[in-house]
Amino acid sequence: MQLSPFLGELVGTMVLILLGDGVVANVVLKRTKGESSGWIVITTGWAFAVTMGIFVAKAFGSIDAHLNPAVTVGFAVATGDYSNLVSYISAQLIGAFLGAILVWLHYLPHWAATSEPGTKLAVFATDPAIRHFPGNVISETIGTLALIIGVAGISSKSLGTLAVGFGPYLVGVLVWSIGLSLGGTTGYAINPARDLGPRIAHAMLPIPGKGSSDWGYAWVPIVGPVVGAILGGLLIRWYAL
Amino acid sequence: MQLSPFLGELVGTMVLILLGDGVVANVVLKRTKGESSGWIVITTGWAFAVTMGIFVAKAFGSIDAHLNPAVTVGFAVATGDYSNLVSYISAQLIGAFLGAILVWLHYLPHWAATSEPGTKLAVFATDPAIRHFPGNVISETIGTLALIIGVAGISSKSLGTLAVGFGPYLVGVLVWSIGLSLGGTTGYAINPARDLGPRIAHAMLPIPGKGSSDWGYAWVPIVGPVVGAILGGLLIRWYAL
Amino acid sequence: MQLSPFLGELVGTMVLILLGDGVVANVVLKRTKGESSGWIVITTGWAFAVTMGIFVAKAFGSIDAHLNPAVTVGFAVATGDYSNLVSYISAQLIGAFLGAILVWLHYLPHWAATSEPGTKLAVFATDPAIRHFPGNVISETIGTLALIIGVAGISSKSLGTLAVGFGPYLVGVLVWSIGLSLGGTTGYAINPARDLGPRIAHAMLPIPGKGSSDWGYAWVPIVGPVVGAILGGLLIRWYAL
Amino acid sequence: MQLSPFLGELVGTMVLILLGDGVVANVVLKRTKGESSGWIVITTGWAFAVTMGIFVAKAFGSIDAHLNPAVTVGFAVATGDYSNLVSYISAQLIGAFLGAILVWLHYLPHWAATSEPGTKLAVFATDPAIRHFPGNVISETIGTLALIIGVAGISSKSLGTLAVGFGPYLVGVLVWSIGLSLGGTTGYAINPARDLGPRIAHAMLPIPGKGSSDWGYAWVPIVGPVVGAILGGLLIRWYAL
Repeated sequence: MQLSPFLGELVGTMVLILLGDGVVANVVLKRTKGESSGWIVITTGWAFAVTMGIFVAKAFGSIDAHLNPAVTVGFAVATGDYSNLVSYISAQLIGAFLGAILVWLHYLPHWAATSEPGTKLAVFATDPAIRHFPGNVISETIGTLALIIGVAGISSKSLGTLAVGFGPYLVGVLVWSIGLSLGGTTGYAINPARDLGPRIAHAMLPIPGKGSSDWGYAWVPIVGPVVGAILGGLLIRWYAL
Repeated sequence: MQLSPFLGELVGTMVLILLGDGVVANVVLKRTKGESSGWIVITTGWAFAVTMGIFVAKAFGSIDAHLNPAVTVGFAVATGDYSNLVSYISAQLIGAFLGAILVWLHYLPHWAATSEPGTKLAVFATDPAIRHFPGNVISETIGTLALIIGVAGISSKSLGTLAVGFGPYLVGVLVWSIGLSLGGTTGYAINPARDLGPRIAHAMLPIPGKGSSDWGYAWVPIVGPVVGAILGGLLIRWYAL
Repeated sequence: MQLSPFLGELVGTMVLILLGDGVVANVVLKRTKGESSGWIVITTGWAFAVTMGIFVAKAFGSIDAHLNPAVTVGFAVATGDYSNLVSYISAQLIGAFLGAILVWLHYLPHWAATSEPGTKLAVFATDPAIRHFPGNVISETIGTLALIIGVAGISSKSLGTLAVGFGPYLVGVLVWSIGLSLGGTTGYAINPARDLGPRIAHAMLPIPGKGSSDWGYAWVPIVGPVVGAILGGLLIRWYAL
Repeated sequence: MQLSPFLGELVGTMVLILLGDGVVANVVLKRTKGESSGWIVITTGWAFAVTMGIFVAKAFGSIDAHLNPAVTVGFAVATGDYSNLVSYISAQLIGAFLGAILVWLHYLPHWAATSEPGTKLAVFATDPAIRHFPGNVISETIGTLALIIGVAGISSKSLGTLAVGFGPYLVGVLVWSIGLSLGGTTGYAINPARDLGPRIAHAMLPIPGKGSSDWGYAWVPIVGPVVGAILGGLLIRWYAL
């Protein structure tokens, strides 16, 4: 495959999920070196998964480096240009699915060592701390809105041009912030591909002693982020951020 | 509303409190994913809440991005220009109030899950580790003085111009530092709007099983920061930092 | 010795191992100030060990600052230029060996205070969480592939030139990310010199109550990283990243 | 007093100790918000204490912003220019002494709440994990050597000019690294003023229930850092780093 935005989104999202779901595996699976190392490890891991995913996406041809259908939707709404929507989102979903397979492979001896099925699913898909659909949708909406507005703020034309490489770092810091502050309720999917791609992988992979892929919750980390993204995109459009 | 310094201060402070009070909610409320994850999570969360609040404030029209009446007072004293005082502080208070409402909404299912009323108040307003008014005022004064002098140091004319985007990051690091080192006594309000706006929200919101809004302490995170800000502003003025 | 790439690789890798094995010593040895301070300390320590090793390597004459035979192999495969392979890898191994001696010296009173021989070896060499050779090799391969692709992404020509000093910081962040997310299985050697040099030091040093140097595992953190590096180098070559 | 290198070193070191000893107070004193929050909090706090001390020192007139007699000695040896030695070291000691008084004031209600005298001393002065004079001197020597070589690497002429403000951040990261990796033995004074100034303050201040200021150990964090600084300065001189 040639370097292209499609390839960039795919490989970048694969790296995002390898490093993002990877840190969850490290903290929640049994007999890992990072077992039970807590929220600071989870959130720092996801933060730099984003930073590194962006660098890799750019190198493989995606200047935008969205890695997230919600970001793609938000900026489509903001700019009125929907031409990349289908190709970006497809690439992100495929990349997320492949990244989850890499996580499964990377933590190969630890699946059998972990007995609880829900813990194994938690590596792949988000799960609310308290199941409460309206509250969970609100959480994912607010978290994604913070993401979209934060990205707009970091890349705002009024600021001037960020130094090369500092943008991906700051977007990682933004996701660190969202995880620390808003992740406590639903585990901050804030990205439909991040949840759906690995959930499909969970359903398909031969994980010993796995349980349900919890499809009853799967719509929440899609609907919440899309609503948040549309709200964010409208704000960017209205205010020409 | 048009992009303006007023709107920028309002939206920026709203984001600051959403992410700042949000991390406290994540750590202190029950059944969250970050429950009891400790001081490193609290301080990292507040640090990047500041960074992201500044980016958003700038994008929405506030070049200054104070987000804090103490900073506004400090630089008014430093420059002798008091013209923005009323509009900035009003915007900051409104933003802080709205941010607190978003936190309440974001953590909706967790208020009933938390029994202790003092814990619920802690999400909104600061509370001293040991109630000792003179000591608490001194703490808030020293913390805010460190903030004002730190901001002056980061943006000092003698350094030259920071790279775009690096300033908001460094101010976040400054608040990280103050939280880690000086936050142990009063919880580092160092910002009257950060305490008062959410305290008013706490008094008004229908939080199940909430207790007192502890108005007897509410003057401390106003008086201490204002005194620290005036001292800092005088230092900047005297030394033309 | 004159400033040269050889000296730079040697001194830089020595600093890398002093600070990298040093943080493991701090966390796992008994009666240290950082005893049992967990995975966040280990990974943050290794991250900045890399950053500082790179700065020192550059100052002592190595513009490349690989500090890692896998990186040297990866970029040799990528560029087709194998001329530095032997000298760089020799320097890295000597540096890693000397760095491990410095760690032994630095933590001098703590070896006798620690009874478990496996704990003492863990300061020097990596050890899998679950011994499973195929899984362990896969882990080291994936981790090193992430390192090589990440470095390629950070230094990608398509991005433009990073600000001076920001590159070493970002490579540290990359290793932070790999440690947090992928280190849970084999302890992320992702660098044959990092494992082999200190393992030789462990075998030779007069450490009270030391046990086996576990030579049966020593091939894994060589083979895995070399395979990952070759895969990464081929990707960089094919895509001209 | 006029802006000058003397004032800059004094105020910068005061801020360094306020934030540095402050984080120790937060972690070790009783009934603070950061009580027992561990090594990650201590080391992150000291890291950014350094960053902020440097910014403030520069703003108040010290371009060098050493804040540390060992750094002053190291660069005097490196350059052969000893003219600032007495004035810088005097300013650093006075600043460290004043910073320690601010910490005492900031944590005013917590001294009586803490019963153990050794804990109270630990806020001010370093104390080895295992008392072993040769080992402790070696630790302080190696730690300070890493500091001097690290600073030389970060500011190396071969790298080019760091972006404005990035240098102080990177020196903070260097001290973060040293604390995480080498601080486990003696608590990384690596700065004679950081230990001696606050130790004198401890001896003089009316701290309830305080014990000995442990003068028998006070020479170690002077001799070790000076030896490390001289070694580092000679390396810089020989290699013209």
